[in-house]
Amino acid sequence: MAADNLKKALTAADAGIATSLDRLFELIRIPSISTDPAYAQHCRRAAEWLEGELLHLGFDASVRLTEGHPMVVAHDSTGAGPHVLFYGHYDVQPVDPLDLWNSDPFEPKLASQPGGETHIVARGACDDKGQLMTFIEACRAWKSATGSLPVRVSIVFEGEEESGSASLPKFLAETAEELKADIGLVCDSEMWDAETPAITTMLRGIVKEEVEISAASRDLHSGVYGNAARNPLQLLSEIIASLRTTDGGVALDGFYDGVRELPADVEAQWRRLNFDEAKFLGDIGLAVPAGEMGRPVMQQIWSRPTCEINGITGGYAGEGFKTVIPAKASAKISFRLVAGQDPGKVRDAFRKHVTDRLPADCSATFRDHGGSAATVMPADGPFLRKALVALADEWGNESAIAASGGSIPIATDFKEKLGMDVLFIGFGHFDDRIHSPNEKYDLSSFHRGIRSWVRILAAFADMPR
Amino acid sequence: MAADNLKKALTAADAGIATSLDRLFELIRIPSISTDPAYAQHCRRAAEWLEGELLHLGFDASVRLTEGHPMVVAHDSTGAGPHVLFYGHYDVQPVDPLDLWNSDPFEPKLASQPGGETHIVARGACDDKGQLMTFIEACRAWKSATGSLPVRVSIVFEGEEESGSASLPKFLAETAEELKADIGLVCDSEMWDAETPAITTMLRGIVKEEVEISAASRDLHSGVYGNAARNPLQLLSEIIASLRTTDGGVALDGFYDGVRELPADVEAQWRRLNFDEAKFLGDIGLAVPAGEMGRPVMQQIWSRPTCEINGITGGYAGEGFKTVIPAKASAKISFRLVAGQDPGKVRDAFRKHVTDRLPADCSATFRDHGGSAATVMPADGPFLRKALVALADEWGNESAIAASGGSIPIATDFKEKLGMDVLFIGFGHFDDRIHSPNEKYDLSSFHRGIRSWVRILAAFADMPR
Repeated sequence: MAADNLKKALTAADAGIATSLDRLFELIRIPSISTDPAYAQHCRRAAEWLEGELLHLGFDASVRLTEGHPMVVAHDSTGAGPHVLFYGHYDVQPVDPLDLWNSDPFEPKLASQPGGETHIVARGACDDKGQLMTFIEACRAWKSATGSLPVRVSIVFEGEEESGSASLPKFLAETAEELKADIGLVCDSEMWDAETPAITTMLRGIVKEEVEISAASRDLHSGVYGNAARNPLQLLSEIIASLRTTDGGVALDGFYDGVRELPADVEAQWRRLNFDEAKFLGDIGLAVPAGEMGRPVMQQIWSRPTCEINGITGGYAGEGFKTVIPAKASAKISFRLVAGQDPGKVRDAFRKHVTDRLPADCSATFRDHGGSAATVMPADGPFLRKALVALADEWGNESAIAASGGSIPIATDFKEKLGMDVLFIGFGHFDDRIHSPNEKYDLSSFHRGIRSWVRILAAFADMPR
Repeated sequence: MAADNLKKALTAADAGIATSLDRLFELIRIPSISTDPAYAQHCRRAAEWLEGELLHLGFDASVRLTEGHPMVVAHDSTGAGPHVLFYGHYDVQPVDPLDLWNSDPFEPKLASQPGGETHIVARGACDDKGQLMTFIEACRAWKSATGSLPVRVSIVFEGEEESGSASLPKFLAETAEELKADIGLVCDSEMWDAETPAITTMLRGIVKEEVEISAASRDLHSGVYGNAARNPLQLLSEIIASLRTTDGGVALDGFYDGVRELPADVEAQWRRLNFDEAKFLGDIGLAVPAGEMGRPVMQQIWSRPTCEINGITGGYAGEGFKTVIPAKASAKISFRLVAGQDPGKVRDAFRKHVTDRLPADCSATFRDHGGSAATVMPADGPFLRKALVALADEWGNESAIAASGGSIPIATDFKEKLGMDVLFIGFGHFDDRIHSPNEKYDLSSFHRGIRSWVRILAAFADMPR
């Protein structure tokens, strides 16, 4: 009977894939860029669109306002099994540089590839609209096939994941009783490769900072003042240069305090994945790893912290030339953190590093763009074991127990505020160009992602409540 | 008789000051930003406006097209004295950052100051529209008072001074016979102070370069690639940091080759000017000189070369935050040169300096935004002596024989192409905020600048032809 229902739900997922795609396209067309206040109304629209879809599926769904962009919360109690809480985010990254896109970022396109795959190309195609819709469409398949879900399902969608999740901790604290479930599910990570799913148990944390260096009281003519007047672009460059050691490490005082070497068993597990450094770098036009000298790339991106300059602004950026010494220069800088690092301490160390290097007449102001600690989830457990079986049934390959260099602060919040673990199961590929021009999601990720959730929900139904 | 005529011309200059100002405002309202191609039509309009004014004054005036922005050439042969060639430029610098302007940059405003001065506030109010109009209005005063000019006058205006003067050398070579005169006059420099005029005999040269550093083939997500992928913003910062030595000098190989210490007599002359370092820096909110350690500020800005970062672009510059590792990062960098330095060699040394520091997988492309050698004019001569007397008559103070840290390539071109020396006589103040928001020109600079040229033209009339 349970096997019959699963078969029916999978058939419904297959039969509905064209309309599933239509709905994803509708969501993608809403330009819900959370970091830019100019797009606030679009974020609101995306939340309302999700609320509408979930109401239509029979969820008790509502948009919940916050001081930032709204949350969407939904509950379905047609299932009798354990209670799962699914998390996704409807906001997306900015699209610049727009001139590097081959098509309108908010008009999704299906692009056939030489290898036979089809890509969904758009901002948010993967991160996270494509991914979160795999779960919604899996619920739809179950409902249309059997009229109910195999387990009790709650959903929370946020709209500030790409801009620091400022409203999330307070919201989760306030709704802890309502949202608390047996396990958290997040679909915002990558597969190991196109045929091998992955359950991610380690994620890096992050500290995002903006620093503005000020020198003269106004922009200056470099002919009149050049040499004698402090140039904040020169100073900013010198400070940024000082953030790295000559062997590629991060030079902040105490940055590596508490950072441990990878445990031997995890290192062995990762080695078995046969990560192809040359292909990983080759796909983005590089051949030689930067960063910490002598460290394998896999460690560098999964288990080692880093400092990255995400933007510098100052002086004349237009066509042609302007011989200006600007009054101010600024940089957006982020630190990816691993277990053992405290985001607050790293932020303080960065600010001290900058302040200690300011010469006379110069000042620095800092802006906190959010942060979160690294996540380390148990690499075993009853829900994880069930999910591994369901994924193997769908993909025909064992899942990788993987890490991710990205940061999804929700895990820490779910653990701290709701007292539950999270399974990160995503269907993105490493080459999905999330946060970059021409972001894509493989149609197979979308379709088989839906099928994977159909199976995972069925697998959880077996579990003791 | 000559004294009578001078008196009449000065009276005409005083009587016409309100309409002189109206005409300056008309010219300022044309946003002739030469570096930005979007403003090309406005540059054309500014040239045509000047042609019209000069035709109206009885000059044989015409707009001359070039591959860039047009030149304006005009001749008047009503005078019998020696032949002077006046040079100015009608193009202006960009206006960004626009939000730091207190009023529309292209809608000139008269602003009364607490000390009793009145400022003309607008882009180009000083550099160089206000300054060049002092000469035109002086010619107008002579014509309206006496019907003719005291000397033979030719004028050339260019529209690319703020963007590299690319068309000028070829144009001067082609029109050498037409333009050759006994002395060049340029009004694009500063007075020593509000009461003391200056004749500038040394100007720094310049090399303007743009460098773009490329690493990965596309923008990257810093979570997925951070640490292992080369960050071009980090690399660019390290390269910029390496351009300065720890004692504030410029670190390019051979940069100081050929640079000589200031001759003792010039140093003594400058010392007599009692330059107030504290006030110079204090006016722009600074207290401690940057640049070459131990050098007096006056040397640093007048007789020492420098390297200045004029703009950095790369990564996310919008509101909020984006965790991107950009594929490219670029900087606009200029070098101010002094006598003995070759612009071509400095450019080559810079390119080599960058190229030598590129790690694997990275490349650099360079863009030449123009350059010119430093100018050193004779500090004595018959025209200079006449001009000194005329300026002393107008201002009641002896002129300073001064230098300028800025670059006006015309002097080298006039010397090389037309075989004549140039007198740089300008009425700007050091605090005119040229190239910066809220550029201004003192109404007294404009009015007494006109009167100064009225006197200088009369003084030259005495000279043997």
